[in-house]
Amino acid sequence: MGRITIVKVGGKVVEETESLNSLLDQFYKISGNKILVHGGGKSATEVANRMGIKTQMINGRRITDAATLEVVTMVYGGMINKKIVAGLQSRGINSLGLTGADLDLIRAKKRHVGEIDYGFVGDVENVNTNELKLLINENITPVIAPLTHDGKGNMLNTNADTIASELAIELTNYFDVYLFYCFEKKGVLMNPDDENSVIHDLDFDLFTKYKENGIINTGMIPKLENGFRAKRSGVKEVLITNPDNIANGKGTRII
Amino acid sequence: MGRITIVKVGGKVVEETESLNSLLDQFYKISGNKILVHGGGKSATEVANRMGIKTQMINGRRITDAATLEVVTMVYGGMINKKIVAGLQSRGINSLGLTGADLDLIRAKKRHVGEIDYGFVGDVENVNTNELKLLINENITPVIAPLTHDGKGNMLNTNADTIASELAIELTNYFDVYLFYCFEKKGVLMNPDDENSVIHDLDFDLFTKYKENGIINTGMIPKLENGFRAKRSGVKEVLITNPDNIANGKGTRII
Repeated sequence: MGRITIVKVGGKVVEETESLNSLLDQFYKISGNKILVHGGGKSATEVANRMGIKTQMINGRRITDAATLEVVTMVYGGMINKKIVAGLQSRGINSLGLTGADLDLIRAKKRHVGEIDYGFVGDVENVNTNELKLLINENITPVIAPLTHDGKGNMLNTNADTIASELAIELTNYFDVYLFYCFEKKGVLMNPDDENSVIHDLDFDLFTKYKENGIINTGMIPKLENGFRAKRSGVKEVLITNPDNIANGKGTRII
Repeated sequence: MGRITIVKVGGKVVEETESLNSLLDQFYKISGNKILVHGGGKSATEVANRMGIKTQMINGRRITDAATLEVVTMVYGGMINKKIVAGLQSRGINSLGLTGADLDLIRAKKRHVGEIDYGFVGDVENVNTNELKLLINENITPVIAPLTHDGKGNMLNTNADTIASELAIELTNYFDVYLFYCFEKKGVLMNPDDENSVIHDLDFDLFTKYKENGIINTGMIPKLENGFRAKRSGVKEVLITNPDNIANGKGTRII
């Protein structure tokens, strides 16, 4: 089995020129097959603001009405995705920007309206690994925006961490998969004010304990839940780290 | 030699839901290999307005400063491109949205600053037909936004008519190419107020005459110049028409 590395990047890392360039330099160094999955929430909020569209978040998730769907489609699928693709091409990596609609790559179902109506948010139903394998065999590096489609002509907003873990899980059928969640911190921190308090190894019991006593909270919880699900489903390694530590494998390892 | 149809659509056609759906229905009916190239200028102007970014046009061309480049990258590469891709997927066409940066498809050079500084506008230097052929052989339908890249990490704004004719010309090496320029009119009109005054056959002498006496003006001139260039370079047929007439081949034929 070949090896594939999936790097998910979010937060400031993809939204500021300097950190994006540094990320792309690190990503360039990864040998073999690779996929980059990106976020871009801050930029979406900023563009929405400038267009006079109100942003509403619940539990760290964006309520996606029709106007917000247009914004995230533009910002994730256009602005950020193409910035990354052009940046990788300039480094000699033949990249291809994708959303879930392109090549019917990721089909999703509009989330059921329960207590909260998240609007045009999609829960992943199917990952088209045939098309992905075709690209990878041609030495093409997919750059994937956090957008899916419903097969009926509608785009849907989908969490980038989830997309990364779903891709990782499906690809375990064909590859040894290494999944890196990258953001601005060196890993999951015991103390948010101390950059050096990285939790090096995290098992599910410890995660449950830290969740209960509040050491791990809000945004980090769904990311780690995705990570544990990936690890349980056969992904070789799941690491939460910053881009500079991809090469040396330092950060929080899910065990 | 196989056949390929390139449809370029601009104007209101791609920017209003009803006309877009009707276009996609017509596009669906085209048999064999096909490519869709789209514009989206009106939407770009609208989004720019809402973001408080001023739009400046000279001779029908958009002056593309850094802020405007972000807008067109979002609107063309994200909003409109993905709306089309999702719409085609819902019709069972396995489409893939692309800019010139994706797969290094279209490299361009930032336009030389002469009397006018157009900003981040690219003149096409190279079309990567190998990647295009690969997609076409896999039965994938490319949907191409009017954006290119310079190979140094920068996106560039490029006229959609020009992209369509450049693709058409390069593909004559491998296919019999049919190029359709679609917009809201039935063809080039003798009298702009009379929808039925379509000029059916247009040769270069007639074009020159109509240009001199003002019957053909502004926006139509570069479109037709692109059309004549394509026809001279071996494209089998160049037709200017509205989407409903793709199937029956009615409109203005460049001869």
